[in-house]
Amino acid sequence: MGEFELIERYFKRPSQRNVLGVGDDCALLRPGPGMELAVSTDMLVEGRHFLSTVNPRRLGYKSLAVNLSDLAACGAKPLAFTLALSLPAADEAWLAPFAEGLFALADEHGCEVVGGDTTRGPLVIGITVFGEVPTGEALLRSGAHVGDDIWVSGTTGDARVALEVFRGTMSLPSEVFEQARARMELPTPRVALGQALRGVATAAVDISDGLLGDLSHVLRASGVGARIDAEAASSLLDVEVPSERRLEFALSGGDDYELAFTAPAHRRDDVERAARAVHTRVTRIGRIEGERGVRVVDAAGHPVPASFASFDHFG
Amino acid sequence: MGEFELIERYFKRPSQRNVLGVGDDCALLRPGPGMELAVSTDMLVEGRHFLSTVNPRRLGYKSLAVNLSDLAACGAKPLAFTLALSLPAADEAWLAPFAEGLFALADEHGCEVVGGDTTRGPLVIGITVFGEVPTGEALLRSGAHVGDDIWVSGTTGDARVALEVFRGTMSLPSEVFEQARARMELPTPRVALGQALRGVATAAVDISDGLLGDLSHVLRASGVGARIDAEAASSLLDVEVPSERRLEFALSGGDDYELAFTAPAHRRDDVERAARAVHTRVTRIGRIEGERGVRVVDAAGHPVPASFASFDHFG
Repeated sequence: MGEFELIERYFKRPSQRNVLGVGDDCALLRPGPGMELAVSTDMLVEGRHFLSTVNPRRLGYKSLAVNLSDLAACGAKPLAFTLALSLPAADEAWLAPFAEGLFALADEHGCEVVGGDTTRGPLVIGITVFGEVPTGEALLRSGAHVGDDIWVSGTTGDARVALEVFRGTMSLPSEVFEQARARMELPTPRVALGQALRGVATAAVDISDGLLGDLSHVLRASGVGARIDAEAASSLLDVEVPSERRLEFALSGGDDYELAFTAPAHRRDDVERAARAVHTRVTRIGRIEGERGVRVVDAAGHPVPASFASFDHFG
Repeated sequence: MGEFELIERYFKRPSQRNVLGVGDDCALLRPGPGMELAVSTDMLVEGRHFLSTVNPRRLGYKSLAVNLSDLAACGAKPLAFTLALSLPAADEAWLAPFAEGLFALADEHGCEVVGGDTTRGPLVIGITVFGEVPTGEALLRSGAHVGDDIWVSGTTGDARVALEVFRGTMSLPSEVFEQARARMELPTPRVALGQALRGVATAAVDISDGLLGDLSHVLRASGVGARIDAEAASSLLDVEVPSERRLEFALSGGDDYELAFTAPAHRRDDVERAARAVHTRVTRIGRIEGERGVRVVDAAGHPVPASFASFDHFG
């Protein structure tokens, strides 16, 4: 099967909202009046971001999910994406389920494919995603203020537990492992929550490299520090693991694709209302402080040693 | 050097025209009033699109050039790009010249980096480029009409000659080889020509897989065929090679990043005026016909056998 036939068969879809889809030199996008276009790009490499044994349907889903998560962190509504694919071979048994998983999530969010590129090479998936957000209303990393609450959506650390099992450093009952594995392979981008938080949250980031690591980008961009409640943070982990590792996994697990965000303390009700409206759990885990750095503290306010490094691809 | 330091050092630049640059979850783009955003994405893989021995400065340049060429084919003005980079190691001796070559071309076109992603893995470069074009004025593949002239910018086939030398199937005097090699490694995206052709050309495509192959996309999208003048097409090759291979290289060489476009015969003067205004050579090589397919003919109108396949990554 040639490159053009491959594109035609698996990735060409009629264009709807956007002007021109796959099949010209460029796609043409027209954000609505008063809208800015939010853009994010991610590259997933076999052996680094996913195992060669991963189910291709789940991989297709996840490849788009991690990109939608960036749009969520900006409060943007998904519009479209481009797909660049390097593949060792044009293997239909892989391509068909990959495309199925990808488009299942794309359709769920009304996000249409508008362009792409395929080539032979190592298995690498490059997606660039486009969303729209009312001008000036995007959630940024730089808006956190002293006194703001720190919130986290959903659960964190579960994907890391699955990774540890794959690495052979932990073992778990099979139903617990499958639960963790689903969190790793089928993360839920918090797209509706991100939009619901526009005008409520002061800053937001998506958690891909670990909660503390990604929160530190917010702290640096905002010129502030944070105090984290260890007990609240430990509750972010969903799966059952030995208690001495709960905090570590929750704070520095990585691959979570949840949102960490800040909001003024007097807007707690608004945060909870926004979260309820989109059926998403949110947990308040700490507070923004003027003193730089992060302090993880127990119920009595005593520091808990927590020097978990965040994930860094070149660390 | 860690991932964030690497991004900071080589790829972070102050944002100018666009709202938000590298360093948040998304970049925010705002096309001007009455403008559409043209988007294109390309992935370059070591061993497939470039040799491991290529000069990293030239590779940085070319990685963006092939994307700008897609904008050129739409008649769009470059605005911004995102860069996703998978690298075997954070090697400064490679990164510094790569970034230099990339930004030299970016600056020449006022095209700023607005986001990116770096990871460890095989050497793969993924760029998504954004341009703007007045609504409804983009050059498409589907606009060619029977009777239109077929034009090509610059020269074609030279990059392929260099590739044949690298493959060991040809040998050339060293200054001829260097000339061909420069065409392969430093292609000139026809950005100014693309914009100058808005309102003049009826269809356009950029030549990446070979002139005939890429022209066939225009023919298919427009529901027409073409007659190509072998003598005019042979003149597209710039370097000196044995005469019996000139036509093959010019028509199916690949990696040219020139524009093939169509325009009404009564607008020849307008095409030539537009090309002169942007100091770009254009050559008229044939005519659009109603009969499907491509016929390559000699000066007497007799068919020349020319079954050169275009390049297909999965062919």
